[in-house]
Amino acid sequence: MNPDLAWAVWCGERQRRIEDVLSSVLPAADQLPVALSKAMRYAVLDGGKRMRPLLAYAAGELVAAPPEAVDAAAAAVELVHAYSLIHDDLPCMDDDALRRGKPSCHAAFGEAMALLAGDALQALAFGVLAEGRLRDAAGACALLADASGVRGMAGGQAVDLGSVGAVLSQDELETMHRMKTGALFLASVRLGAACGRPLSAGEAAALDAYADAAGLAFQVTDDVLDVEGSASSLGKTAGKDAAQGKPTFVATLGAAAARRHAEALRVEARAALAPFGGAARRLAELADWIVLRTH
Amino acid sequence: MNPDLAWAVWCGERQRRIEDVLSSVLPAADQLPVALSKAMRYAVLDGGKRMRPLLAYAAGELVAAPPEAVDAAAAAVELVHAYSLIHDDLPCMDDDALRRGKPSCHAAFGEAMALLAGDALQALAFGVLAEGRLRDAAGACALLADASGVRGMAGGQAVDLGSVGAVLSQDELETMHRMKTGALFLASVRLGAACGRPLSAGEAAALDAYADAAGLAFQVTDDVLDVEGSASSLGKTAGKDAAQGKPTFVATLGAAAARRHAEALRVEARAALAPFGGAARRLAELADWIVLRTH
Repeated sequence: MNPDLAWAVWCGERQRRIEDVLSSVLPAADQLPVALSKAMRYAVLDGGKRMRPLLAYAAGELVAAPPEAVDAAAAAVELVHAYSLIHDDLPCMDDDALRRGKPSCHAAFGEAMALLAGDALQALAFGVLAEGRLRDAAGACALLADASGVRGMAGGQAVDLGSVGAVLSQDELETMHRMKTGALFLASVRLGAACGRPLSAGEAAALDAYADAAGLAFQVTDDVLDVEGSASSLGKTAGKDAAQGKPTFVATLGAAAARRHAEALRVEARAALAPFGGAARRLAELADWIVLRTH
Repeated sequence: MNPDLAWAVWCGERQRRIEDVLSSVLPAADQLPVALSKAMRYAVLDGGKRMRPLLAYAAGELVAAPPEAVDAAAAAVELVHAYSLIHDDLPCMDDDALRRGKPSCHAAFGEAMALLAGDALQALAFGVLAEGRLRDAAGACALLADASGVRGMAGGQAVDLGSVGAVLSQDELETMHRMKTGALFLASVRLGAACGRPLSAGEAAALDAYADAAGLAFQVTDDVLDVEGSASSLGKTAGKDAAQGKPTFVATLGAAAARRHAEALRVEARAALAPFGGAARRLAELADWIVLRTH
């Protein structure tokens, strides 16, 4: 099989797999209270690139973990991501009516139910991970909590809130994004890698360097796509960052330099994988996809 | 020491203790992002009866767990409770500007920051519990996730949302409250009891029966106080349930029968503790306090 095709097959298989895993850990659509169960399923299923689960599965391959050993970690990080999107779209945050090509959760279920759906998804993420039979499930929960909380995703969103209308320096922008999206990227890779053989200290540092570069590359590319994309290809409102006065890499660097920066981060992420040889193939391909995608 | 005084001393000591524990696990007031750290501390510290931590400490005494062994469990359940109050007070939920005798979190910090503070507190709860060196920290996280999620607290709030304007039967009301407040009460007691010697199956069932009766007694008493109390003694807006058309035990049973029901639940909760003898003293006294309190 040529490499591009093998990658596409791997990626599609894992995307279908995580869809099934998520469907099975979510409350059934008829579980009481039905409105909450439906809102949770609506916000999680049938959409999204599943970037974080793919990172977890790909990191699992580094340590010879079969997909079934990684399922819980992959589901947990996607549930955290999904809850953050629901809360991010609420009127008091970004006030966005479109997400993954359909009405956002609060547009479909009302604000109060969307708030609760996000809350319940966060709880579910920790429940799935705690029951996931990882070698150190409590350590995994601690790692996910740190990546999601004040030092991670929620903290990054708070910085974002305080930065509206500002043009940040590249350093400030990168610090914000290391918290807002980078921390959960890092957790995805670390949790996937925690599902197989233990890593050496050197391997763990190399993997962290990969995740850091890949996470920033993802955000820089997102900023470029927000300017250049259309709502139909993005599945969300295009140009909204600029319209809301959000600081972006495009605003700080300009579009051409932002594209070059993303490319440099892609190369940096691939280079970090050198100690792993061929076992890191899927992580390397993910770095490519992160930068070369069109949505 | 006479029993009432011994109880007051025990209760005051544990309330001061959990305040210190919470302060130490929360981000420092100057930790970046400062606004989020401050909102989290504001919503958690200097207020509240600390009923759930008291339940955890009292259950710990059943199994000879010293307070320091219970701190993580006690903090985790209070952090979940505190996050739920922040989200509950938001305009899209109960829209309440007063909480614990001061402006609610969103009134002080804005809606978006309050939303994020609640989200970050939930993550912190799982982080504290995961790192709490319980015998089975992963099992504890799974238990807390279940109590907080769609089958527990968040689910109960969704039922509550769907019940505005309705008069529920006593059965329906009790089902809702078993989810909304009962599940976290039960988790508080089970997590406290998980910090010492293992319970027999009979003891575990007795403890669950206690928690169930005490949790309902708490809610029935809350409904009575909401009608009979004042904002100054409650520290929150009085009469708001009735004003918002929320179903309450007072609406379903009448005030006098609701008070009798709370008293019967208090007796039931105490009776469930019979297998434990004197080791259950503090849990028994907590059941008394739950029903006989004036705020």
